[in-house]
Amino acid sequence: MNFELSEDQVAFADMARAFAQKELAPHAAEWDRDAVFPVEVIRKAGELGFCSLYAPESVGGLGLSRLDASIIFEQLSMGCTSTTAYLTIHNMVTWMVADYGKPATIEKWGEKLATGELLGSYCLTEPNSGSDAASLKTTAKRDGDDFLITGSKMFISGAGSTDVLVVMARTGGEGAAGVSAFAVNANADGISYGRKEDKMGWNSQPTRTITFEDVRVPAQQMLGNEGDGFKIAMKGLDGGRINIATCSIGTAQQAINEARAYMLERKQFGKRLADFQALQFRLADMVTELVAARQLVRLAATKLDAEDADAIAYCAMAKRFATDVGFKVCDEALQLYGGNGYIKEYPMERFVRDTRVHRILEGTNEIMRLIISRRVLAEGAAEL
Amino acid sequence: MNFELSEDQVAFADMARAFAQKELAPHAAEWDRDAVFPVEVIRKAGELGFCSLYAPESVGGLGLSRLDASIIFEQLSMGCTSTTAYLTIHNMVTWMVADYGKPATIEKWGEKLATGELLGSYCLTEPNSGSDAASLKTTAKRDGDDFLITGSKMFISGAGSTDVLVVMARTGGEGAAGVSAFAVNANADGISYGRKEDKMGWNSQPTRTITFEDVRVPAQQMLGNEGDGFKIAMKGLDGGRINIATCSIGTAQQAINEARAYMLERKQFGKRLADFQALQFRLADMVTELVAARQLVRLAATKLDAEDADAIAYCAMAKRFATDVGFKVCDEALQLYGGNGYIKEYPMERFVRDTRVHRILEGTNEIMRLIISRRVLAEGAAEL
Amino acid sequence: MNFELSEDQVAFADMARAFAQKELAPHAAEWDRDAVFPVEVIRKAGELGFCSLYAPESVGGLGLSRLDASIIFEQLSMGCTSTTAYLTIHNMVTWMVADYGKPATIEKWGEKLATGELLGSYCLTEPNSGSDAASLKTTAKRDGDDFLITGSKMFISGAGSTDVLVVMARTGGEGAAGVSAFAVNANADGISYGRKEDKMGWNSQPTRTITFEDVRVPAQQMLGNEGDGFKIAMKGLDGGRINIATCSIGTAQQAINEARAYMLERKQFGKRLADFQALQFRLADMVTELVAARQLVRLAATKLDAEDADAIAYCAMAKRFATDVGFKVCDEALQLYGGNGYIKEYPMERFVRDTRVHRILEGTNEIMRLIISRRVLAEGAAEL
Amino acid sequence: MNFELSEDQVAFADMARAFAQKELAPHAAEWDRDAVFPVEVIRKAGELGFCSLYAPESVGGLGLSRLDASIIFEQLSMGCTSTTAYLTIHNMVTWMVADYGKPATIEKWGEKLATGELLGSYCLTEPNSGSDAASLKTTAKRDGDDFLITGSKMFISGAGSTDVLVVMARTGGEGAAGVSAFAVNANADGISYGRKEDKMGWNSQPTRTITFEDVRVPAQQMLGNEGDGFKIAMKGLDGGRINIATCSIGTAQQAINEARAYMLERKQFGKRLADFQALQFRLADMVTELVAARQLVRLAATKLDAEDADAIAYCAMAKRFATDVGFKVCDEALQLYGGNGYIKEYPMERFVRDTRVHRILEGTNEIMRLIISRRVLAEGAAEL
Repeated sequence: MNFELSEDQVAFADMARAFAQKELAPHAAEWDRDAVFPVEVIRKAGELGFCSLYAPESVGGLGLSRLDASIIFEQLSMGCTSTTAYLTIHNMVTWMVADYGKPATIEKWGEKLATGELLGSYCLTEPNSGSDAASLKTTAKRDGDDFLITGSKMFISGAGSTDVLVVMARTGGEGAAGVSAFAVNANADGISYGRKEDKMGWNSQPTRTITFEDVRVPAQQMLGNEGDGFKIAMKGLDGGRINIATCSIGTAQQAINEARAYMLERKQFGKRLADFQALQFRLADMVTELVAARQLVRLAATKLDAEDADAIAYCAMAKRFATDVGFKVCDEALQLYGGNGYIKEYPMERFVRDTRVHRILEGTNEIMRLIISRRVLAEGAAEL
Repeated sequence: MNFELSEDQVAFADMARAFAQKELAPHAAEWDRDAVFPVEVIRKAGELGFCSLYAPESVGGLGLSRLDASIIFEQLSMGCTSTTAYLTIHNMVTWMVADYGKPATIEKWGEKLATGELLGSYCLTEPNSGSDAASLKTTAKRDGDDFLITGSKMFISGAGSTDVLVVMARTGGEGAAGVSAFAVNANADGISYGRKEDKMGWNSQPTRTITFEDVRVPAQQMLGNEGDGFKIAMKGLDGGRINIATCSIGTAQQAINEARAYMLERKQFGKRLADFQALQFRLADMVTELVAARQLVRLAATKLDAEDADAIAYCAMAKRFATDVGFKVCDEALQLYGGNGYIKEYPMERFVRDTRVHRILEGTNEIMRLIISRRVLAEGAAEL
Repeated sequence: MNFELSEDQVAFADMARAFAQKELAPHAAEWDRDAVFPVEVIRKAGELGFCSLYAPESVGGLGLSRLDASIIFEQLSMGCTSTTAYLTIHNMVTWMVADYGKPATIEKWGEKLATGELLGSYCLTEPNSGSDAASLKTTAKRDGDDFLITGSKMFISGAGSTDVLVVMARTGGEGAAGVSAFAVNANADGISYGRKEDKMGWNSQPTRTITFEDVRVPAQQMLGNEGDGFKIAMKGLDGGRINIATCSIGTAQQAINEARAYMLERKQFGKRLADFQALQFRLADMVTELVAARQLVRLAATKLDAEDADAIAYCAMAKRFATDVGFKVCDEALQLYGGNGYIKEYPMERFVRDTRVHRILEGTNEIMRLIISRRVLAEGAAEL
Repeated sequence: MNFELSEDQVAFADMARAFAQKELAPHAAEWDRDAVFPVEVIRKAGELGFCSLYAPESVGGLGLSRLDASIIFEQLSMGCTSTTAYLTIHNMVTWMVADYGKPATIEKWGEKLATGELLGSYCLTEPNSGSDAASLKTTAKRDGDDFLITGSKMFISGAGSTDVLVVMARTGGEGAAGVSAFAVNANADGISYGRKEDKMGWNSQPTRTITFEDVRVPAQQMLGNEGDGFKIAMKGLDGGRINIATCSIGTAQQAINEARAYMLERKQFGKRLADFQALQFRLADMVTELVAARQLVRLAATKLDAEDADAIAYCAMAKRFATDVGFKVCDEALQLYGGNGYIKEYPMERFVRDTRVHRILEGTNEIMRLIISRRVLAEGAAEL
């Protein structure tokens, strides 16, 4: 057993931290306020490999493990939660195209996604199938060498500003087995974008509904085989849960770092906040839970890397715990700031708003509990 | 012991509910989004007496008890948390002017505040004395028949859009005994307003820093006697805590009402959310804690009305408990909405943002704990 | 609205407090350690009317309201949780016999139960129907002018040391409508008692399984009419929930009183525990939640007294909240004692053990959540 | 990074599990009920090396790491919390004697402690220095080649049934620097033992106060050098915290295993408990927090093994988190059992009683928070 980062991991983390401090943190408040999607900065991230961390080297990806990616995303999210969260989605799209695409698809989009020249969106959720992905209604009907995709996708990150969509659509009967995945040109005929959603947070990434009306997609842009879609989606979700949990961890760590500095400086009743025992205790609990959550995320990432049969349960545990802890830590950090925590001059309220959605995305934390309990009841908890 | 509303209270509540549903609820999202201070609607509220609920009838106030006011504010906050919260501050200002003002001051401003023709702001907090009000630095120096006020006040609700300021300033030495209260013309020479703060919520009321530079105020605009300021402020805070606790209760009740309707309609996995046992249990806990919190607020209000020696401890308990419960209920209601809870099309994320500041304002919940524990350790908890 | 105790209530509370301090508190640790059922002390309680608080005056009961009874039981439970909890059960039996018994039954047992000369047990729970009372299997078959009762009852408080059993048994078909209630001589032929259960707490009352084999009971000992049993049981449960919630409140209040005294005396690191801010905050939260819980219990009691249609939901809320808060307060009080909290020389660990079962009894807190959510989803929460 | 157990660790765990299931679990309830200190079984554990897991091989110890020991103790505590907790204390004594003893002391007691032929007790806590160990009052005065120890030690595990005491006593001035450690014959003249404490749990190990009156101890039985005592005690505490945290983890895992089986079997309302969603969710949370706690304990153990400068903070975090989670999991498992959870026929209430003291021992969880916050405020939390 070994809990230390390797030299490579330390180096990656240092690079990510430097990028976050230089390119993300100084702009995060503005991107939030003005709802700016910082495409240029994402491309700069791509130059360092951050757009294809675990995509294969064949497309120019870094071919890293999920654990490595988590270590890097954690540092990035300390600079900007929302932008890093989008980056994790783009990484997923890049990996799906590179891993499941047919040669022509990889040729067409693989490298450009890997560098961030093109950006991707992931289209799974529908208006009436939030948590229940297997019931999705979007259809893809065979038409000669093409498929015609019709339906609606909701809460799509990056939508309207991205180039490649990975779309889950029904090519067969009901249930999970009838779903296939496609890589789709975001500007194809028949695609229309809804208005930019006004959200509580995650403002540096646009969110829109996408409507598909007989959108013609060459059959060779299918990812994997017919009926593989749900399986691909679920594998994506496992990684997505690690990623979103990681963004909670990084944001909470940043909240603690800033709150600590504030406590050492800010005085009330003639004493520094750091000298009030009740606040010390709270800080101790924030740090303790964060350290526990980080370990759980890393444990889950190694399970996913090892293709452990229980990876799905571990990823669900990591996502549930880390996103709840992350939000709670940010909320308590805000409280330590008093009135200053509530105004946008300080980052605390943004941290709270941005991490709030992590408890919902990639399967709500209620769905996580279903996944975990199903596994425990089926096979026992001793090995978990 | 009797926990039922009187006929009058039911009538007031009905009137407030109708006003909230007609005049507040339909606009709350827009006021939040565009940061509109709805002065006209506040004046309409004034026509119904909502600008002077517990101000004396001599100025046209309703002369109600704090308990009555809480019952009314609860209904109003179900329509718009932020606007109602401002209204409670205006009520406090009206009451302070009417109760502690000298005849000329009452003559000048009493009725106009009571009707909402003029609006008030309450100026206690300073940049370096958030929770530690007794250490405030703003000075009021005697100059003939006037005082000259110099200093800065922070987080002032309504600032820049109101007409009358109640200002706490130091006329004497250090500590609580050196503080006096003044009613000040908001447009007096020497007053300047900072930029409108960008906040997490409470967007329908502007918040600004106010700077006073040798602002000349006639001595007869002092409220109470010299050195009474802190005592007046503290009495105001007791009521303010009831009020802010009440706004949390009302908002949480609204969140539950809407979440209940959503659960009865929204389906996942072929079942209504209302049919999932884990969500039923959560709803049960939300309601239970809300009912407990409401009772505690009403208990505290009756203690304040009765001028009970322990009213300060009860108000602190009510504020601590109700604002924590209110936020938690809203946060869980948001979660029940899934992705829809995070977008501004639904009110849940606004409820969360608006109630978040209640845990900070009118004395943070940490200060509440100090007040409570001081009382319990000094005199025992048996009677509480 | 009025939250003050009446003069009569204050007098009753004083009397109960005096009795608790003189007759219960000095022996509670010993009764716990040696599993003594203090029958003589219960009879002394009966002399003061504490065995028939809300039984009608026709049998010598005090004819008090449930609210009055709660105020009295709270004081008694400050002296001994477990004994008071048994007393509440005896009160329920007395009331059932007096209110639902036929004249001959009332004649036979009413006054003797009311004075505590005879003691009662309440027999509802069965080995396979803990929370699901309507599915009980014990049968009562008509045999001429008698019924023959056969079946098993579990977790029966007082069993083996009491004189009169109120037994719920099935006289008809499945479900709630088939259940009838009987008053049964505890020494009747065919009744056998299991061994005394070894329990975590509640040691001053014996708990046994009771087995009924063709136990002959005169038909006139039926309480109410045939098929009324479940209705009577449920009405009993509403009151029982108030009572058990009350015992949690009283115990928690006692825990706070003692912990407060300990904090003012015990020193660590050269300071009194009372001088550590983190412990002050904890004490403040303990008191706050306890005060909120007490109000909720009293609110529910008044609903029950008023035969409010929502009384069942209020009683469920009060039971859920007060028993959770009560246990938590005792657990935190134990923690404040450090190592001393863990040894039996101090009462804290007993308070924790005794209150633990309150979260389970009279319907588990999970059943409470079902009751509450059912009501809220059916009719809306606005009125609650 | 690697979270997998090594082959050796798996083998050790298997051996410990087998021992726990065969020698501990079948007797744990009886040992608890009758307060039996199972000396023979502890000696059997010694035969397998469990009395000297991390003592050096020179005395016959296994020379394992703290991480290895944690893995083994976790399995043992699944069989009997209280007995395993004593074993961890004995291991600490064995290690202190073997590591800090002078050759003659090691010669005299090393091997016999390592095999469990002799048993040890650890004497640090005093009546007035629970959490504040540096203020201890027991003195050791030089008298020729001996020291004379005088004072009182409290809450001493095994006291009265053990052979060797490690005693912390003051040889110098006030504060930590004046403390030295001694190995003392438990039957030496001048040692007297108080009565066996009646405790909430941990009943399979006797706890007594020990009084020392001029107890003559050869100077060569000092452990380490004069003034090293506090340093040795603190190092012992770091390991002790890992151990006690481990006992919480193991007990909680056992509680989950049994609760899972119960849920799959026990029916209410015609369904298995396992089929109720609200209970599934609770089980999921229990498992998730337990897995997170276990990782944190193992992380802390590796920090201690690596003599990391931050080991003390990690051990404090692990102790705080794992003992709170462990208790909470046991408490919720008890609740899942309903009434059966409260009676001693089932192990749940024992798990709750036994783990309760873990939040207090080896430094209360409040002291843990002090240690953690001190570290975070001094050096930042980024690296933790």
